[in-house]
Amino acid sequence: MSLLLAMTGWHVEDWRARFQALLPEMPIVVPGEPFDRRAVHYVASWKHPAGSLTGLPNLAAIFSLGAGVDFLFADDKLPEVPIARVVDPDLTTRMSEYVVLHCLMYLRQQHRYMRQQQAKLWEDDRNQPAARSVRVGIMGLGELGLDAVAKLKVIGFDVAGWSRSPKSVEGLQTFSGEDGMKDFLARTDILVSLVPLTPETRGILNAGLFAGLAQDGRLGGPFLINPGRGGLQVADDIIAALDAGTLKGATLDVFETEPLPVESPLWSHPGVTVTPHNAAMSEPEAIATLVAAQIRRLEAGEPLLHAVDPARGY
Amino acid sequence: MSLLLAMTGWHVEDWRARFQALLPEMPIVVPGEPFDRRAVHYVASWKHPAGSLTGLPNLAAIFSLGAGVDFLFADDKLPEVPIARVVDPDLTTRMSEYVVLHCLMYLRQQHRYMRQQQAKLWEDDRNQPAARSVRVGIMGLGELGLDAVAKLKVIGFDVAGWSRSPKSVEGLQTFSGEDGMKDFLARTDILVSLVPLTPETRGILNAGLFAGLAQDGRLGGPFLINPGRGGLQVADDIIAALDAGTLKGATLDVFETEPLPVESPLWSHPGVTVTPHNAAMSEPEAIATLVAAQIRRLEAGEPLLHAVDPARGY
Ligand SMILES: NC(=O)c1ccc[n+]([C@@H]2O[C@H](COP(=O)([O-])OP(=O)(O)OC[C@H]3O[C@@H](n4cnc5c(N)ncnc54)[C@H](OP(=O)(O)O)[C@@H]3O)[C@@H](O)[C@H]2O)c1
Ligand SMILES: NC(=O)c1ccc[n+]([C@@H]2O[C@H](COP(=O)([O-])OP(=O)(O)OC[C@H]3O[C@@H](n4cnc5c(N)ncnc54)[C@H](OP(=O)(O)O)[C@@H]3O)[C@@H](O)[C@H]2O)c1
Repeated sequence: MSLLLAMTGWHVEDWRARFQALLPEMPIVVPGEPFDRRAVHYVASWKHPAGSLTGLPNLAAIFSLGAGVDFLFADDKLPEVPIARVVDPDLTTRMSEYVVLHCLMYLRQQHRYMRQQQAKLWEDDRNQPAARSVRVGIMGLGELGLDAVAKLKVIGFDVAGWSRSPKSVEGLQTFSGEDGMKDFLARTDILVSLVPLTPETRGILNAGLFAGLAQDGRLGGPFLINPGRGGLQVADDIIAALDAGTLKGATLDVFETEPLPVESPLWSHPGVTVTPHNAAMSEPEAIATLVAAQIRRLEAGEPLLHAVDPARGY
Repeated sequence: MSLLLAMTGWHVEDWRARFQALLPEMPIVVPGEPFDRRAVHYVASWKHPAGSLTGLPNLAAIFSLGAGVDFLFADDKLPEVPIARVVDPDLTTRMSEYVVLHCLMYLRQQHRYMRQQQAKLWEDDRNQPAARSVRVGIMGLGELGLDAVAKLKVIGFDVAGWSRSPKSVEGLQTFSGEDGMKDFLARTDILVSLVPLTPETRGILNAGLFAGLAQDGRLGGPFLINPGRGGLQVADDIIAALDAGTLKGATLDVFETEPLPVESPLWSHPGVTVTPHNAAMSEPEAIATLVAAQIRRLEAGEPLLHAVDPARGY
């Protein structure tokens, strides 16, 4: 019985060493070397090449090495076995660091003050709103969304959330589904997208959505923060909305193509802040430890944790 | 019985209107117009010209229109009457917005990522520490310091505090006085100064202090955030420490001379972030309401709130 590591862009030998230390009894195999496909019971994947997980007759489970699973469902030859993702409290905390940072940069007009510093200009905004006068809307009330909500509330923001299924969260105004979308957007000055990328959410951050955001807020226009997935956003619509003033700023951690190509106008648009998909990294040790624990659960006959639903796509 | 408004740099007539609405029965007088000095029972001041509050024989109290009182004690002809400052929960909240924002900018290397964006460079830090691995030290555990502590802890930072008198705060490592200073600095990666400006604290942010900060932290060098008072810092020492690497960055909201003169090298030093003394502004309505309430307390024979101690200077 072996564990197959299938990844793109990461150092597979580092991961082999990590897993081997945690699962000393388990053979760990990697593509490109000869291995017995019938012996593979588990796959740990990060962006494996589509189609490369076929012909594993005894496969029992696939583990995403990240919080997202969109790259798995993009493989239309994905074996029909249980799939689990990583839910890592450390990753959640880091995502909230990112969300709070960028909400505060917009609240406190830090982009403006940095430009003013370059011009040696001493000028404050006598109408600076406090956090309680600024409405943050969190799209996605899962592991990440709910932690961000709690922390933004402590800082003082006026927070609401939107999810697929209706949710009741103490002290939080919630909206759900298509029906709740319009009202959710209309009360949102800073939109933070923490939904997974699925067929339903692909391209959801588009011109129509931006036009529905609050245009009368205390910050003088709505802002977008997308640390979810690049496929959620329509880059051309973001630029057009910034140019038209429908959006006042956008902070993007994720892109349809990563690294973001140098030709992309997002790099140099004055309304865009780019970060290199680092909103919330897990420590590899932590991920490996969580996946190894899942394998030990299965071996002991216990149910998988954090299983995802292929029908929903997350 | 009248209230004298004595201020520099603010629109006195706006303040007169605010106070008049709150205290309709009280004559409100301002310098430059004839008024009966014997009738003045109260003074509300923001940076009144030194010496201008003499010859008020029936003065009962002086109110600072801000959280700080250093400008009052800088007047060596200040009448010996009770003095109170403004303690405004809204101001406290805004200061914590500022402190959390700038701690997160350093934690998440946002200055670096903004430079990288200008160069269209996609590169993350595989060793990005989480907040729990970064030690914030708050100098001053008063109204502002304690609120910042609580919020930084929620974000996940490893926080400790330092004050004049020993303090016990649940879940917080505290240090006090000269004796506690060395150990406090040695465990501090990001130093936030929220002490008042007094003869004891003037120039406290100097070369000696910077040299005592943690040089081995996960962020590759210590950072300074000063939203306290400009007189706390020795600007030349900040620049020398940045150039020598003893400090890795400094975010300054306050300066010995404000507005910061265009000649100041702080404006253009790559390691310095300048904000125009706007870390925590109160809404004038809120300040006036708090001061009017204090006047009504005194008129009703109740004790003054938030009195300051001239011997301590805060
Ligand atoms: N940039 C980074 O570094 C980084 C790091 C980690 C994760 N991420 C991204 O963050 C995403 C969210 O992670 P998570 O752990 O919070 O996921 P999660 O726990 O599965 O939560 C997903 C949330 O999105 C909602 N949602 C899903 N589809 C929706 C739809 N069509 N309409 C409205 N709401 C919908 C879900 O609604 P229900 O509650 O009704 O199910 C749920 O509240 C991941 O999928 C990943 O793409 C990015
Ligand atoms: N930039 C802005 O927009 C802005 C806005 C508001 C205020 N401020 C500044 O922030 C300062 C702090 O405000 P606050 O309301 O928190 O004041 P506070 O409640 O009076 O607290 C002051 C704290 O500093 C400590 N302290 C005083 N002298 C000290 C010394 N010599 N050594 C060590 N610790 C000392 C005090 O120690 P003990 O606890 O032992 O007394 C106390 O913990 C104000 O004085 C003002 O200068 C700036």
